[in-house]
Amino acid sequence: MRSPDELRALAEAYVGDLALTPELGALQESLRYATAGGKRVRATICLATAEAAGAEAERALPAAAALELVHAFSLVHDDLPALDDDRERRGRASTWARFGEAIGILAGDALLAEAFRLALTYPTPAVARELAQATLGMIGGQYLDVTGTAPDEPTLHRLKTGCLFAASVGCGLAAADVPDREQAPWRAFGDELGLLFQIVDDILDGDGYALSHGADGARRLADEAADRARERLAAVPADTAILLEIVDGLATRTA
Amino acid sequence: MRSPDELRALAEAYVGDLALTPELGALQESLRYATAGGKRVRATICLATAEAAGAEAERALPAAAALELVHAFSLVHDDLPALDDDRERRGRASTWARFGEAIGILAGDALLAEAFRLALTYPTPAVARELAQATLGMIGGQYLDVTGTAPDEPTLHRLKTGCLFAASVGCGLAAADVPDREQAPWRAFGDELGLLFQIVDDILDGDGYALSHGADGARRLADEAADRARERLAAVPADTAILLEIVDGLATRTA
Repeated sequence: MRSPDELRALAEAYVGDLALTPELGALQESLRYATAGGKRVRATICLATAEAAGAEAERALPAAAALELVHAFSLVHDDLPALDDDRERRGRASTWARFGEAIGILAGDALLAEAFRLALTYPTPAVARELAQATLGMIGGQYLDVTGTAPDEPTLHRLKTGCLFAASVGCGLAAADVPDREQAPWRAFGDELGLLFQIVDDILDGDGYALSHGADGARRLADEAADRARERLAAVPADTAILLEIVDGLATRTA
Repeated sequence: MRSPDELRALAEAYVGDLALTPELGALQESLRYATAGGKRVRATICLATAEAAGAEAERALPAAAALELVHAFSLVHDDLPALDDDRERRGRASTWARFGEAIGILAGDALLAEAFRLALTYPTPAVARELAQATLGMIGGQYLDVTGTAPDEPTLHRLKTGCLFAASVGCGLAAADVPDREQAPWRAFGDELGLLFQIVDDILDGDGYALSHGADGARRLADEAADRARERLAAVPADTAILLEIVDGLATRTA
């Protein structure tokens, strides 16, 4: 089994070399721009899940790339002036700030459609179903955020972040053809990852959970989320050493 | 076999009663608003194709609704201020004008994701693949339009309009489980429909082909497109009487 860094490099190379739909023409440039520079956390989880479930990671590459494209879609649209109005992303101009607002909208649309095209290269609809469900949850979360109508912080993050992390595990299982009846312990693990990622993100950015719970309180919440993820992982009947490394990495990351 | 009007009513009722994803919450209102009032041309073609191919039209309803949702997605985003900046659509406020720009962007995103969710209710990925390909073509067409970089009018319309009309036939075939090796004559028919629809649209609106070719010239082009569609249909080994009615309706429509 390959290390998280090896799996990340595999995903990075695949996303970088992705053949986009020719009909997109010169719009492709904005899609490449929007997908560059990510940490590939979701892709790595997907690949590690597939390997832990007994498949070649390579088999899960289209699913892993599709997850990164959905993630990129959500960032590109969230950054738009009418939503979060962010001119910067990953230390450079956000997609709309670089290419204009019209291209920002179209690039996000195309990223989502390309994600489905990739997910649909599998012989069954399972990967694409995971993706559709997660995307709808994310959009519901962004709606709660934009309108300020979230009932509470956990609900907001379960939708905005948690859905796609859970789908990262789900897509890995689907790509590895793990039967539905064997998926429950894996999925219980996947459900814990998004919250862990979000709390640590907020600690690093000094917002969200770091504001609502203080730095120490947020750190405690993150440690508890990591512990729950490790417990769930212990219940998965497979060699989950690499996934455990990923959990440790998410809990202790500094960027 | 049911008439075009009966099939249209079937699609209308199905789209109207569609259960949207609960996680979308109150965003659902904007999706319902955006999908109300369409002519259901694409859905009707899909249902008629499925019936002509020997399946129950009901089997093709999720595919037909998915086509309408993709169409609605494209209208909602095209109307945005950064793109066509249209405040009106179908005789009332466009979705962003009614709900604000942020909701307009999210509603479009959700319509596209819901379309895939519906297309993915089939046991095979065939319908969803049609949809992904057509959506990417449409976005490529909108990019050419927005940037004014289309090499010519037919290329622009083949992408912007033609792709989704062709997919309406393709989705009907997929829903009816027509084997790939038998699809060629049907697809040749589907490829003619988009152009016919677009030219008549331009005649009714007094723009596009009506401007570039004059009213009489555009009428002649529309008649030729209708003739080609009828010829292609004659080569389809099935009872295509209803599809022929749809071609006649598209050629002579006045609204």
